[in-house]
Amino acid sequence: MTKVTAQMSVSLDGYYAGPRSSTDPHDMAAWMESPEGPGFFRVTRWVIGAMGWRERLGFAGGERSVNSRIIEETFAAAGAYVMGRRMFDGGEIPWGEEPPFRAPVFVVTHRDRELLERQGGTFFTFVTGGVERAVALAREAAGGKDVAVAGGGTLLRQVLAAGLLDELELHIVPVLLGDGMRLFGATPGASLGLDTREGIELTPVRVIETPEVTHIRYAVCGRAKLELDDRGSGGA
Amino acid sequence: MTKVTAQMSVSLDGYYAGPRSSTDPHDMAAWMESPEGPGFFRVTRWVIGAMGWRERLGFAGGERSVNSRIIEETFAAAGAYVMGRRMFDGGEIPWGEEPPFRAPVFVVTHRDRELLERQGGTFFTFVTGGVERAVALAREAAGGKDVAVAGGGTLLRQVLAAGLLDELELHIVPVLLGDGMRLFGATPGASLGLDTREGIELTPVRVIETPEVTHIRYAVCGRAKLELDDRGSGGA
Repeated sequence: MTKVTAQMSVSLDGYYAGPRSSTDPHDMAAWMESPEGPGFFRVTRWVIGAMGWRERLGFAGGERSVNSRIIEETFAAAGAYVMGRRMFDGGEIPWGEEPPFRAPVFVVTHRDRELLERQGGTFFTFVTGGVERAVALAREAAGGKDVAVAGGGTLLRQVLAAGLLDELELHIVPVLLGDGMRLFGATPGASLGLDTREGIELTPVRVIETPEVTHIRYAVCGRAKLELDDRGSGGA
Repeated sequence: MTKVTAQMSVSLDGYYAGPRSSTDPHDMAAWMESPEGPGFFRVTRWVIGAMGWRERLGFAGGERSVNSRIIEETFAAAGAYVMGRRMFDGGEIPWGEEPPFRAPVFVVTHRDRELLERQGGTFFTFVTGGVERAVALAREAAGGKDVAVAGGGTLLRQVLAAGLLDELELHIVPVLLGDGMRLFGATPGASLGLDTREGIELTPVRVIETPEVTHIRYAVCGRAKLELDDRGSGGA
């Protein structure tokens, strides 16, 4: 059965990049030099040596490590993707003629644009009807495989807040960045719309530890009231 | 050899309590009803059924689970504690005549106060000379065991930012709270004083998974420059 999944590399303090920059997202060189770059490079460093990543990008070499196997599994499970507009803008040029997705990608945007077909099975469909619509289209296109939220953080939060996310895997990198773009937070635009008596409950379904990163996969259970308890004082 | 350790229960989005409240910290009933309460109760719920916790608090019953063993180990490893003033204020009354520490506790405060001796081996020393001084006193008092940062979050960050922390264990609870008191963040007073090209590196040394909580213990390696890389394109 098709699940909607998301995965993200984050620092131990919850950042997936350095502080947000206003450089043109199409200008990769400028972006790398911006404050976002060092944090992003650090939290995704575990990916770079992995054969499963290098093979998708057309780079030789790499290790067939536990981390590589996780990347391979993640790519293999996805029958279609949904993607935020800012991530697409940043990736369009560096991904080149043969992007690593090899599957239909539905980009959530406000600007209409024609289907963009690339080599290797990747084609980008631009969806102006909102997140729900993009996820519905991706479900139809996924051929029974999973729909993966490719990112970025804003889209991931929207899918989660809308109750559409079934599984979330965080790759928790052992570094504190101190500041940056936060996957989850109470800043305007990053809120999940929860009040103080409510949470979104999850269940850990897989934990894999490596020296470079701890991978925790969660099933998303949904919104639930936060209960006070007697702290054990009324127990047997 | 004496290590300086800290451990904290946090939600998956990094909160250890709900949004900070201005209720009198001595007034436990008011605090529980404040916005801080529900989040704090949720992230510490895994502790309540554990025999290792109940026994320390004088409550009967409880399970001798993996989670209980972790609590027992944590108490057993600590020869002395350092504690923030706000945490002490909140605990002084509910901990009663026999607090769970059973060891010397050094409270970092601006207000001088006489030594407070309690039953069971706990005595509170009020240290006005700052965090470094409190940690140094706790080291002397620890009798070769560890110095544990009892909390709260502010003190933990101060000890970490000062380069005094050797080990950090996070108990990551599978819930998203959306807002609250954050262990790590860029808000004023919560900063680690890092610039965007610098992080604090850690190494995971133990990961224990349970359905209720994932325990990750890190060795703190210290500040390091964040490097950009070639994303694998220059590889073999």
